[in-house]
Amino acid sequence: MKKVTIFDSTLRDGAQAEGVSFSVEDKIKIAKALDNLGVSYVEAGNPGSNPKDLEFFERISSVRLKNTRVVAFGSTRRRGISPSEDGNVQALIGAGVKTVAIFGKSWDFHVTDIINATLHENIEMIYDTILYLKEQGKEVIFDAEHFFDGYKANPDYAIKTLDAALQAGADCLCLCDTNGGTFPHEIYDITKTVTERFDTVIGIHAHNDCGMAAANTIMAVRAGAAHVQGTMTGFGERCGNTSLSTVIPDLQLKLDYECIPPENMALLTHTAREVSEIANLKLNERDPFVGKTAFAHKGGMHIDGVSKNSKSFEHIDPALVGNERKFLTSEVAGRTTILSMIQRIAPDIEKNSPETIRIIDRLKELEYEGYQFEGAEGGFELLIRKELGKYKPFFELETFKIIGEHPVMGDTQTATAMINLSVDGKTEITAAEGDGPVNALDKALRKALEVFYPSLSQVHLTDYKVRVLDSTSATASKVRVLIESSDGDESWTTVGVSKDIIEASWKALVDSIEYKLIKDIEKKFKDFL
Amino acid sequence: MKKVTIFDSTLRDGAQAEGVSFSVEDKIKIAKALDNLGVSYVEAGNPGSNPKDLEFFERISSVRLKNTRVVAFGSTRRRGISPSEDGNVQALIGAGVKTVAIFGKSWDFHVTDIINATLHENIEMIYDTILYLKEQGKEVIFDAEHFFDGYKANPDYAIKTLDAALQAGADCLCLCDTNGGTFPHEIYDITKTVTERFDTVIGIHAHNDCGMAAANTIMAVRAGAAHVQGTMTGFGERCGNTSLSTVIPDLQLKLDYECIPPENMALLTHTAREVSEIANLKLNERDPFVGKTAFAHKGGMHIDGVSKNSKSFEHIDPALVGNERKFLTSEVAGRTTILSMIQRIAPDIEKNSPETIRIIDRLKELEYEGYQFEGAEGGFELLIRKELGKYKPFFELETFKIIGEHPVMGDTQTATAMINLSVDGKTEITAAEGDGPVNALDKALRKALEVFYPSLSQVHLTDYKVRVLDSTSATASKVRVLIESSDGDESWTTVGVSKDIIEASWKALVDSIEYKLIKDIEKKFKDFL
Repeated sequence: MKKVTIFDSTLRDGAQAEGVSFSVEDKIKIAKALDNLGVSYVEAGNPGSNPKDLEFFERISSVRLKNTRVVAFGSTRRRGISPSEDGNVQALIGAGVKTVAIFGKSWDFHVTDIINATLHENIEMIYDTILYLKEQGKEVIFDAEHFFDGYKANPDYAIKTLDAALQAGADCLCLCDTNGGTFPHEIYDITKTVTERFDTVIGIHAHNDCGMAAANTIMAVRAGAAHVQGTMTGFGERCGNTSLSTVIPDLQLKLDYECIPPENMALLTHTAREVSEIANLKLNERDPFVGKTAFAHKGGMHIDGVSKNSKSFEHIDPALVGNERKFLTSEVAGRTTILSMIQRIAPDIEKNSPETIRIIDRLKELEYEGYQFEGAEGGFELLIRKELGKYKPFFELETFKIIGEHPVMGDTQTATAMINLSVDGKTEITAAEGDGPVNALDKALRKALEVFYPSLSQVHLTDYKVRVLDSTSATASKVRVLIESSDGDESWTTVGVSKDIIEASWKALVDSIEYKLIKDIEKKFKDFL
Repeated sequence: MKKVTIFDSTLRDGAQAEGVSFSVEDKIKIAKALDNLGVSYVEAGNPGSNPKDLEFFERISSVRLKNTRVVAFGSTRRRGISPSEDGNVQALIGAGVKTVAIFGKSWDFHVTDIINATLHENIEMIYDTILYLKEQGKEVIFDAEHFFDGYKANPDYAIKTLDAALQAGADCLCLCDTNGGTFPHEIYDITKTVTERFDTVIGIHAHNDCGMAAANTIMAVRAGAAHVQGTMTGFGERCGNTSLSTVIPDLQLKLDYECIPPENMALLTHTAREVSEIANLKLNERDPFVGKTAFAHKGGMHIDGVSKNSKSFEHIDPALVGNERKFLTSEVAGRTTILSMIQRIAPDIEKNSPETIRIIDRLKELEYEGYQFEGAEGGFELLIRKELGKYKPFFELETFKIIGEHPVMGDTQTATAMINLSVDGKTEITAAEGDGPVNALDKALRKALEVFYPSLSQVHLTDYKVRVLDSTSATASKVRVLIESSDGDESWTTVGVSKDIIEASWKALVDSIEYKLIKDIEKKFKDFL
């Protein structure tokens, strides 16, 4: 099994993505998560261009990492000065890390038209900078910017930039498809030429502007590259970078290369989700291997097939990457899916039990009304419990009333909700204001129930979605509301449908709260159940 | 320039994605959008498995399409019966379309272990079904399910299934990587073998489970495939299908194949956004070519480079696909688009007029707040009118008040709205009940205004959509409401954004009504304007 070194640039190239802005704390958390997964390098920032990055390098130096070297990123020295006079190069030294990544120009057009240097000057800038850093005892990765565009325009010159880097002592020559415009067959041919010519580690850094980043990375490795740059979940400038959560399992589980310690592969899904959580960028649900729907089956024939033999519609076992198979609960899904969910609650029930049939009938009724339980497993579990009699209500609603007013007086919020409910005969009446009627009702309900169930204070809503059904009835259309909740440990989704958005939201809110209270009971009394 | 036929399966394979559930109306809108772009085939559903699909086929038969053939999808006949006895095959005939796509098994393991047939029976099922459909005068596309896995396991058998399809008269043999587990070099080699052997149109249908769907499609075309299947924005079962909005420009703008009429390429971004809007699935911002950030530059050096010469950090000109460049620090909007809309109202205004600049500034502000005028031209026209001073309000709102109650007494509706407004100093106070607060407010507003503007009785709302923005703030999230209205002659869409769904709906409702009243004035006084 050949080794491939994984170099994660989430904290540097990833930070170029729209909407991403890391605090120092965020960066430390991400570096630890990547270390835990077993990534070899974490490129953490450009200390010359960002003072926040300097603070990070200072703080990370006291963190013990098991697998990962932290890398500082910068460019070759400016024209006309020596590396020791160049503030950005000095900042790299100041970062105090063992490894630095230096980018330099490999495309003649960029040298002459963008940085206004001569072709010869640029070669010297590469050589001097790397030589200087090697003299300071650094491990140096040379990022040959625009290498593939450069090679296509002027192959001799592109190769000369690599020659200069290698002669100066670079430990790795990384070929960058900076604009993301190159195709897999071109990447393969050009990388092959380079790996045959240079007796050192060759790297690949791809961007996704043609949707080719992952494929280009794979093809470069097949052509002999042994160092792969990317970002854990693929985010980065424009269309993003190579997603490491895609290419690590591609290479390691399917093409026989070792990227991370094999025993860590099952951490992959968790790591990708953690990184995107910290970055506050929602992970694409369809992301290969780690996405929420990566192993979700909806078509009836697919579900039957997977139930017979998982390889019929799955290219790998989802457990290998720490993800799970999911049968989407829909009318077309068929009995197998539903049964597996029923059996989590009542293991004795079988495919033809009257309970199964009753639950399927109820599901069909609800789907006809506009419910959709795929992605709302919390709500579906409650439905099953209600049909099985493994349920009793946690409170009784007497009334609620909502008032919205326009214009709003002063700085009051736009809506008020009053609620009257009781638990075991004890009544609680309260009210809350909110941004709109749903938010007001949500707050009032929690306020009333926390009196009886203090653990509800841990629950917060993490997502709220509204979908209009039969939209041609316009404002009298049915709406489906999906609510995702979390108590820090676990997250669950519930659903409500009504012509009245408040009613639909109410149903989903109540299910969300009841789901939490049932989980609490299960945990507390698990020895008795 | 070689031709490649584009086959879109958004309405069939795309509907297998989690969270997607199309109404017949949605499907017709998407088919029209794809036709408009110039896609050759639209696979619209499986009439045998879904009664909703039959309704669609009936309705689409009266829609005039310029470029697109509608395709019905189904499988080979079941074991032991003839195609004329097979209900699913008959449903394909019943769909009344010229073209059908038939999937059959090409992987020996699937034949023996999943459908429990003999290898010979499966060959007969393929042959009989296609022969029968050809006798009925259909154009037949054969989808060779799991072709690549099948070829790797048993190449002779996989090829035999294609032989059978071709002998029966299939017009196209489409090679499917159903599980998405195959890599570009394998796809290239296997497709090459097939295209060299068979003298007919060879197709490619890829899935993205290894992140390779787009690359696999490109490699198959380079190996001679001339028919490409995918979904416009890549959604589909598990990790999704080949995204056509990626591979169409890859092939046509960069690799010299013709997929759609060249003059339509600039519609690509709009089409992808429209399709995802109708599906209510957020388009991935980083999607190649059509994503919101596909040409967004954040790094200072990148912005400098692009300003000097766009090819320095852009592999193509964003205008070619109807997208635009974006500098994340200092936004530069697409002035040309906006100007053309301004000039519809005020033909004398030019690109650098102060009015144009003011409107662009206002647009940016509103977009920042969460507005999106793509698909809400009615709302955008009002915005322009307001900035140009070609507008005066048609009424003054004094107050409205909304009350929602639970439980509801008797058969009363769930909400009541009271409204107090005035027109030219005359006050009208009224109230209405509705299904939920938005519906009640909608009714009360119309009731009050029809007193003054009787033509409003012609207006009815034809669509109502809600999208939650920043969904992590849960029930306090901002929502964007889109309202489509019609007066029988014309239809228009307006938009409102607020944290309060009632407020957001109110804004869109008011714009909708004002738009209608302005159109009435334009018609009545067109000789004077």
